Amino acid sequence: MTPDEIKQLIRTVPDFPKPGIQFRDITTLIGHGPGLAATVEHLSQRAADTGAEAVAGMEARGFIFGAAVSVRLGLPFIPVRKPGKLPIETIGVDYALEYGTDRLEMDPAAVSDGQRVVVVDDLIATGGTAEAAVKLIRSAGALVEDALFVIDLPDLGGSELLRGSKVNVSSLLEFAGD
Amino acid sequence: MTPDEIKQLIRTVPDFPKPGIQFRDITTLIGHGPGLAATVEHLSQRAADTGAEAVAGMEARGFIFGAAVSVRLGLPFIPVRKPGKLPIETIGVDYALEYGTDRLEMDPAAVSDGQRVVVVDDLIATGGTAEAAVKLIRSAGALVEDALFVIDLPDLGGSELLRGSKVNVSSLLEFAGD
Repeated sequence: MTPDEIKQLIRTVPDFPKPGIQFRDITTLIGHGPGLAATVEHLSQRAADTGAEAVAGMEARGFIFGAAVSVRLGLPFIPVRKPGKLPIETIGVDYALEYGTDRLEMDPAAVSDGQRVVVVDDLIATGGTAEAAVKLIRSAGALVEDALFVIDLPDLGGSELLRGSKVNVSSLLEFAGD
Repeated sequence: MTPDEIKQLIRTVPDFPKPGIQFRDITTLIGHGPGLAATVEHLSQRAADTGAEAVAGMEARGFIFGAAVSVRLGLPFIPVRKPGKLPIETIGVDYALEYGTDRLEMDPAAVSDGQRVVVVDDLIATGGTAEAAVKLIRSAGALVEDALFVIDLPDLGGSELLRGSKVNVSSLLEFAGD
């Protein structure tokens, strides 16, 4: 299944979470067995091409794709979590949302110095979460030079933002101009 | 890698989230590439043995194992989510916690009538979340007769509770008597 065929499996929900926003919903993609498997296969090939030694995914939808890529490649999976979820002493990073701030946390022992980690998530929009995750994983000593997404919304500038942080960005498909 | 070897990869954190609780932490298991892959392989074999036509996983750690099993078997993945996460009209179920209540939601169109769905999660303790997920998926018309877990804490009664709801429960490993 090609990325164009995978794109047909994504449901667009108008005006969610607020008027004017077209929400790209992966529930229908992951609810399609061959579509989900093909998506993970494409991501896994690209992750392997980066020389990844570990895969990181952001809670919660990033767990769906990130962990599956880890399993496919036999690599460690590093969960980047919402605050208070990990039972050990964590490192964390605060980052700005449209209104207020949010925080990501990880186990600092989950990566080793210089380990090549690829970040995987379902979608990149403004890039705030992805940029925070990259910063956090780098602060733990790992090398983050690549991020993979199923969907890019290039009009929102997230992929450009990440490239400015010296991250190669690759997405299977994009929705632009709406 | 055998379930006994997988068990060695789980970190026990004493007194989390409160004194007297031994928290079984899968972060170290999923951070071990061969351990994660072996865990998903064991779960996938058992899921295939149930004749599963789809896999459901509960946010957030259930996404890690559930989605990977879906991909391994080429089956749809049904995310059972925390409230307000899905952009469409959902069905939901409230369930009791030790203090207060929580809620799970899903897309009612994610399953079809009589579809055989297996529930996958990392751990079963008191079983409240798993029982609520089973009830919810059944209310959408699917057949839920099997649930798979990496870890069972049998002293907390969750697997017995589920069996009382006519669910076959299978776990890779257990921690009992502490």
